[in-house]
Amino acid sequence: MSLLVVGSLALDTVKTPFGEVEDALGGAAVYFAAAASYFSLVNLVGVVGDDFDDGLLQFLKQRNTDLRGVEKRNGKTFRWGGVYHSDLNSRDTTFTHLNVFESFQPKIPDEYRDSEYLFLANIGPELQLDVFNQIDKPKLVALDTMNYWIDGSLNALQEVLAKVDVLIINDSEAKQLAGESNLVTGARKIHQMGPKVLIIKKGEHGALMVFEDMSFFHAPAYPLEVINDPTGAGDTFAGGFMGYLASSGSISNDSFKRALIYGSTMASFCVEQFSVQRLVDLSETEIRDRFNAFWSMTQFERA
Amino acid sequence: MSLLVVGSLALDTVKTPFGEVEDALGGAAVYFAAAASYFSLVNLVGVVGDDFDDGLLQFLKQRNTDLRGVEKRNGKTFRWGGVYHSDLNSRDTTFTHLNVFESFQPKIPDEYRDSEYLFLANIGPELQLDVFNQIDKPKLVALDTMNYWIDGSLNALQEVLAKVDVLIINDSEAKQLAGESNLVTGARKIHQMGPKVLIIKKGEHGALMVFEDMSFFHAPAYPLEVINDPTGAGDTFAGGFMGYLASSGSISNDSFKRALIYGSTMASFCVEQFSVQRLVDLSETEIRDRFNAFWSMTQFERA
Repeated sequence: MSLLVVGSLALDTVKTPFGEVEDALGGAAVYFAAAASYFSLVNLVGVVGDDFDDGLLQFLKQRNTDLRGVEKRNGKTFRWGGVYHSDLNSRDTTFTHLNVFESFQPKIPDEYRDSEYLFLANIGPELQLDVFNQIDKPKLVALDTMNYWIDGSLNALQEVLAKVDVLIINDSEAKQLAGESNLVTGARKIHQMGPKVLIIKKGEHGALMVFEDMSFFHAPAYPLEVINDPTGAGDTFAGGFMGYLASSGSISNDSFKRALIYGSTMASFCVEQFSVQRLVDLSETEIRDRFNAFWSMTQFERA
Repeated sequence: MSLLVVGSLALDTVKTPFGEVEDALGGAAVYFAAAASYFSLVNLVGVVGDDFDDGLLQFLKQRNTDLRGVEKRNGKTFRWGGVYHSDLNSRDTTFTHLNVFESFQPKIPDEYRDSEYLFLANIGPELQLDVFNQIDKPKLVALDTMNYWIDGSLNALQEVLAKVDVLIINDSEAKQLAGESNLVTGARKIHQMGPKVLIIKKGEHGALMVFEDMSFFHAPAYPLEVINDPTGAGDTFAGGFMGYLASSGSISNDSFKRALIYGSTMASFCVEQFSVQRLVDLSETEIRDRFNAFWSMTQFERA
């Protein structure tokens, strides 16, 4: 099944206690595709500047990611800089140069319009809505957003939320969107906004999925001894999640559960190295072994 | 199998955003016994003042908890006061009056000396060592401690750690004890201090168990819509954990895994009400249903 992602491509300058990179490949759509392309064909829509080295995306092309939707425009590529604190749980943004991304108007190539799975990465909700309207009749739509849009574009965000099936956000964003400090009450309110499935990302504490009937599924984060760079973990998670769903062809609760673990699996690889380095050439065995390590650390006998 | 707990009995004055109680039953050994007594006979050793109303422990007696080890001394009972912040994740201690607990010298009644399971709740490591030496030959010993002892009595703590099987502490204490910000590296170091099984409590994020071979098992916290008072959740967790182990008679990894879920189950009840209120008369069905709710929210098919 075909999976379309619309979002940012970026060059990141990141410093963590364990090293630093300058103008390294990043961006939500890139991390998403890097993970999803292990499972499914991916159609990518985004924009880069004329300073962008196409070779950076070669590894995606080799995994059959369709890059015809990546527009190259005059100007510079979106650049972001961040410095992580010693515990890696918080960071300061040192700069955000939107450049060509500032006027990004996603145009979905005709060949992508029948994509059955759609991931609207974190861009303005008006643009997300516009993308949604350019797609024929997707089987499943998931969306990410952030505090900036919850604060400043709530009406537009609610309009697009009413149309999507899955919302993937972090715990503080979920509380902010619902106006609730209790996550369960918050989840109930968010379901009423539209999404049938809510996925709350909790960083090093894993992810909680809340179904429409308010039943839960939880994925821990994999305990890692080496974490170099958390950048992109959330989008990588979404990529593993949607990639697996698209490959399975099923949107049953059981598929969602395994998808949540595949998302967690891919995110656990992402943070081991800077940028997308660890996601460039994983083997099927590595992915399966890590998935099964999640299985081993969560399974027990019913009472 | 018999299970012995040594620790505090207290009267707590607690305020949370959802209410307050004054001089309500509390203390590590009380919460522990309140949970463990659903699974196993519990022998309790602690001290109260002559102001203590024995009726407060009636519910434990009814569940066959042996209270002969609870010494009543001239003076006042240990009192603690705390105020929780709005997110319930942090609190300020308003007062700590150790009273008769200050000179607590645990005397293990002869009838308790053949206890096979032992939980050393959070008291000074010298006292924990002294208790350990008063027991014949326990099958399994678990210990709790806190930053105060890691800071001030590290040598004594390391002496007792070398003798115990299971260490149950929270994540910040684990990092402090190991002198490591990475929990996996920290767990490795703590194993070298003695405990074959390390359980890291993460509050609202559940608990991570690390076996001697560095394999992991994770229990989420149950997502609750009503949380009135987190006081005692950690000791209640330990009570469910040790109580189940004592009742199962097995110390296999599979038993430890189910024990971790029973600990999480009991802790999830504890926080629903103030003091030990929710732990007074749970039914077997309530406990089994909550345990199985943990099962439903974690089980998926292997790859």
